[in-house]
Amino acid sequence: MRSLLKGRSAWSDRIEVDIGDDAAVVVPAPERSLVMTCDTMVETVHFLRQTMSCRDIGWKLLTSNLSDIAAMGGTPTFALLSIAVPFSWQTEEIQEIYRGLYQCADENRVTLVGGDTVSTPGPLTLSLTLLGEVSPGNALRRSSAKPGDVVFVTGTVGDSAAGLYLLLHHPQLKEDFPTLVKAHTRPAAQVSIGKWLAESGFNPACDDISDGIAGEAWEIAEASGVKLVIEQEKLPLTAACKEVAKMAEMDPYEWAWFGGEDYQLIGTIRPDGWQQLRQAALEENILITAIGRVEAGEPCVEKETAGKRMSLQQKGYNHFADR
Amino acid sequence: MRSLLKGRSAWSDRIEVDIGDDAAVVVPAPERSLVMTCDTMVETVHFLRQTMSCRDIGWKLLTSNLSDIAAMGGTPTFALLSIAVPFSWQTEEIQEIYRGLYQCADENRVTLVGGDTVSTPGPLTLSLTLLGEVSPGNALRRSSAKPGDVVFVTGTVGDSAAGLYLLLHHPQLKEDFPTLVKAHTRPAAQVSIGKWLAESGFNPACDDISDGIAGEAWEIAEASGVKLVIEQEKLPLTAACKEVAKMAEMDPYEWAWFGGEDYQLIGTIRPDGWQQLRQAALEENILITAIGRVEAGEPCVEKETAGKRMSLQQKGYNHFADR
Repeated sequence: MRSLLKGRSAWSDRIEVDIGDDAAVVVPAPERSLVMTCDTMVETVHFLRQTMSCRDIGWKLLTSNLSDIAAMGGTPTFALLSIAVPFSWQTEEIQEIYRGLYQCADENRVTLVGGDTVSTPGPLTLSLTLLGEVSPGNALRRSSAKPGDVVFVTGTVGDSAAGLYLLLHHPQLKEDFPTLVKAHTRPAAQVSIGKWLAESGFNPACDDISDGIAGEAWEIAEASGVKLVIEQEKLPLTAACKEVAKMAEMDPYEWAWFGGEDYQLIGTIRPDGWQQLRQAALEENILITAIGRVEAGEPCVEKETAGKRMSLQQKGYNHFADR
Repeated sequence: MRSLLKGRSAWSDRIEVDIGDDAAVVVPAPERSLVMTCDTMVETVHFLRQTMSCRDIGWKLLTSNLSDIAAMGGTPTFALLSIAVPFSWQTEEIQEIYRGLYQCADENRVTLVGGDTVSTPGPLTLSLTLLGEVSPGNALRRSSAKPGDVVFVTGTVGDSAAGLYLLLHHPQLKEDFPTLVKAHTRPAAQVSIGKWLAESGFNPACDDISDGIAGEAWEIAEASGVKLVIEQEKLPLTAACKEVAKMAEMDPYEWAWFGGEDYQLIGTIRPDGWQQLRQAALEENILITAIGRVEAGEPCVEKETAGKRMSLQQKGYNHFADR
């Protein structure tokens, strides 16, 4: 265990008892609420050795949790990592996972303060709990969407699924599409936009895109009791994503709707808020795109394409497993 | 997932965003530090279907984390559960695990506020993160033992290992030894004694007995830079534990030293603190026993038996696995 702490940085001066005792103790920031989330990754279900290096695994595990904190508008702070290690994995490989985790933690000023390491006869299983902070009452909820809101998305979508397609089916081409591969193996969470939204005063709805835009839009629609109408042609797809889709004879929009793991934010905000948000994103050099609108009605998501509307199915697909 | 929340109670009025959004949000108690720990249980490594019912699994997972919070002197508050479920487990069985968890949570006023549910081709793997609170500066550390301190232990030790022995080798006898079986399947953490120790002003050292007294005493000795001398005859063993050991032709003290999972507390406190602690435990009807003393010297643990001292090995054994 101790060897796994090499390379770890402590980013907080509020740690009272650090990793190594029965539990860690920290002093919460005054006048801040505590945000907490937990995400698990299982080898063969969430990643394959052929698609992800050890460092990628550690990096992406933290990103998936950062993305949940971002979707609440929080600032990430402390992490605990539980890892169940199969006999077939070498200590050096596990150290590499921690190195990837520490790289991502350092970029986001997150400190690993605890966890558990056990053995397993099954696949490598990693579970990370991430804490964060947000001003009381400011956390972004899925339930805040209101008719008249603009639906927006950060960054581009579909790249992660395109990258995974390449890694699974055309690994020899991965150097031709480095941004797609990176979108899948080294995604970044949209923490700064999330913080802006939380402090904006507009009470936007927000969700992170871990399972594809379709599923996340449905979650907002159901939690808010509204209809989301999304114009497919406005979805921000990269040229690289479209190129790989063409090569694969697949529809790149399917990747955007259902591919997932983009770790962008989708949200809704009233029109004057949208103007301010677009300006703030421009100043921080972050791409943000209006993709639709919120209407009153039975909770659902409609896709608008070439002027026609159709209801959009809720579920994405699972790349590796049947369950 | 929603069906798994049936039977859950919310014990806090400080929950800002409850389970069901991207992350939970709570308001920390003012003037309190935050304690956090994480424990993982893997089927076949930490339990077997033949020894633990589904409810037992949920109960014990929370207890193992409560015990870590108790060893810091904290008051438990919020939990997040990550569970990787094999295809062979039925939904009803998973619901039973949650019911056992909720029973233990209700007894300790803990609220489940989040988690993750994924599938796995491997064994059932459960990882729980538990938060708690403690007054700033009062958390109990392993490093606080000083020469002259009394070494104490709460409750009795060895019962969990004796119970496991029965369940593995003589399941037909389990109704004859209900306290031993319960010690293994439904252990209770010593939260109230932990809190007393933290608020006592004596700055005691403390550790919980998850891996046997030997290993925990070694952790205190090494963290504090002292020698712990423990008198074997003073270890609090039950008559039932001794009876099963006799039947099994095993040494009950081996179970106490190395068996683990007793979830009692071992600690050290200066002699006047010990008098007060004994009185406080008496008033709460909690058994507490002085089992040795702290001496200056190279960090180690010595076992004293029949007036003779010998150094005690550090490691316990693993009941199910080789690693």
